[in-house]
Amino acid sequence: MKRSFIREILEHTTDQTISFAGGLPDESLFPLSQLQDSAYKVFEDSSLLQYTISQGYLHLREKIAAFYCEEGFDTTSDQILITSGSQQALDIITRFYNNTNITLEAPSYLGAMNIFELNKMKILTVPLEKEGINIDEFKKSFKQTKLAYLIPDFQNPTGITYTEKKRIAVAKYIQKKGGILIEDSPYSALYFEQASKSISSRIPKQSYHLGSFSKVLAPAMRIGWIRADKELLQPLIAYKEAMDLHTNSVAQRIIDHYLNNSQRYNEHLAMLREVNKAKMEFFTNELEKILPMFRYTKPKGGMFVYGTLVGVNTSNLLKMCLKNDVVFVPGCEFYLDKKADNEIRFNFTKTTKEQVVKGLEIIKKSLLKETNL
Amino acid sequence: MKRSFIREILEHTTDQTISFAGGLPDESLFPLSQLQDSAYKVFEDSSLLQYTISQGYLHLREKIAAFYCEEGFDTTSDQILITSGSQQALDIITRFYNNTNITLEAPSYLGAMNIFELNKMKILTVPLEKEGINIDEFKKSFKQTKLAYLIPDFQNPTGITYTEKKRIAVAKYIQKKGGILIEDSPYSALYFEQASKSISSRIPKQSYHLGSFSKVLAPAMRIGWIRADKELLQPLIAYKEAMDLHTNSVAQRIIDHYLNNSQRYNEHLAMLREVNKAKMEFFTNELEKILPMFRYTKPKGGMFVYGTLVGVNTSNLLKMCLKNDVVFVPGCEFYLDKKADNEIRFNFTKTTKEQVVKGLEIIKKSLLKETNL
Repeated sequence: MKRSFIREILEHTTDQTISFAGGLPDESLFPLSQLQDSAYKVFEDSSLLQYTISQGYLHLREKIAAFYCEEGFDTTSDQILITSGSQQALDIITRFYNNTNITLEAPSYLGAMNIFELNKMKILTVPLEKEGINIDEFKKSFKQTKLAYLIPDFQNPTGITYTEKKRIAVAKYIQKKGGILIEDSPYSALYFEQASKSISSRIPKQSYHLGSFSKVLAPAMRIGWIRADKELLQPLIAYKEAMDLHTNSVAQRIIDHYLNNSQRYNEHLAMLREVNKAKMEFFTNELEKILPMFRYTKPKGGMFVYGTLVGVNTSNLLKMCLKNDVVFVPGCEFYLDKKADNEIRFNFTKTTKEQVVKGLEIIKKSLLKETNL
Repeated sequence: MKRSFIREILEHTTDQTISFAGGLPDESLFPLSQLQDSAYKVFEDSSLLQYTISQGYLHLREKIAAFYCEEGFDTTSDQILITSGSQQALDIITRFYNNTNITLEAPSYLGAMNIFELNKMKILTVPLEKEGINIDEFKKSFKQTKLAYLIPDFQNPTGITYTEKKRIAVAKYIQKKGGILIEDSPYSALYFEQASKSISSRIPKQSYHLGSFSKVLAPAMRIGWIRADKELLQPLIAYKEAMDLHTNSVAQRIIDHYLNNSQRYNEHLAMLREVNKAKMEFFTNELEKILPMFRYTKPKGGMFVYGTLVGVNTSNLLKMCLKNDVVFVPGCEFYLDKKADNEIRFNFTKTTKEQVVKGLEIIKKSLLKETNL
């Protein structure tokens, strides 16, 4: 098995590296001391440390179900399975469906493609456009696969958000044809202006909706979840149990305790949205000043700015930038066929203003050298 | 997929249930307040909460490697992969070998059989005897499989410990034939009198040695590990990454911080051994008084007393006991063919003295009814 390019980069960067590569949240925005208080509190009860049920901590599942209900998507705690991050959720689901066909956006999330390949899924891709997936191509593909993996909100890597029209079209077609949607939503709460209605909520009996606290609280907790109809969820619980018995309870209970103060959590989310939006605005402003030839669509949320440097081989560009301690991910990594030579994904959440300017200047210099070759 | 019988029982027991079923440590022995202090300390550093490398936290890997070195089994931190408990370690390894044959003891650990089946392993079993696996049968089986999963210390479910002679015989044969050993050692530190030398240390290039903090610190942390030669370990890191990116860092760092005080940890282990031994002695004394017809081998460590009630169908007995809120695991659950009708696994670590007496009395009464039927 090939290792993830991004995670290999992560392992080779130092404190000096200016990284636009990983999908890393800004550490300074973690609610560290509040989580510290929660950690201290949950360690007052020794039952915290005992084996527990595979589906996950009931009170946390209740809170997650309540989030869905607030959005108008009726959900109960028995429709939630807590997983070790969304990554494990993808593993559990596609392990259950293993050895079948699946429809993906092109480009798509690298970690998904990796685990789908491990589960011997045959991946069919459909082009992603500015307003979401190409519907005609989606229909052709889904007719064959009856299973789709989509990221409709601030997609990874492109940052694209599906329009309401595209969401309705996808939901209607899945409903009509039967089959299943895996909707990955790690960034959905990180909108800049407004949230979108999930596709899953329109086809609740034909969807797995994946959520995570990694981008909104802290990745290292490794707490994600699957929301699905009970009938779809039940067999997955047996898989989860066979795979690792249950998700770390300490992290589950710390997050549960932290969420007891819902106003504080909402304020935290509002702060993240505001800071991330300002970071995106700063990043794209500098991008237009320093690399005006970069063609991109401004994201409406999430963590990425994605686009094209026409005529530039971005993998070669990365190699040159690496020498000067600047990294990003060349777009080809997000395609099965690796053929998109000119694209780049920039993460804008992890870097400081100074790093953004310095990093983009280094890319510009490397680019001039590259195009002079 | 069938769910684990034991974990289903776990979900249906109440606070009132006297349970000899699960392999649960005694909650009152968790070093709760010390782990609480560690939890508080690690939450002073926001890097704690960021994504990290798939192999696991370096300082924790260094400490685990040092444990091996202390036993005379040379190990470096790059020979350790941190996993979400030993259960995930079993998944990662057999996923890598998937769809091949594997030799197991009969009876064996239920959770292993479950995940091996999910990974499409063809399981061949070899009888386990009082002094360890039957060597002649092991040779016949291993010749075909070239891959074995064994639990030489205080085996689950039988509590049996391999003699030095058996360990040498197994190691020699694996060395001679080539092939690989998966040695599962969750209970190894919980000896009553003395530790045994692992089989893996005799064939370090042909073995995965699995360890865990679940039984010696706290199960809910879900921190286990694989010790293997770098060449064997490297491909597993890619699997781990695809499966869930990395193990929960909060738990990794809490345990790492706790282990900084190695004297305190050694005292904790010494206390566990003493308390568990006393619990085992009490349990077996009562067993001989209340159920003198139960045939068993006294364990030298671990958490289980295993044996036979000649002529009694222990699954039927369990059903009767369940009505009176007492549970244990019928031995048939630990066999692939489920044919061992008369065997029982008792866990002796989770119950109080009062519960042991009351629970065994209820079993005795149910037994009298059962045999009168």
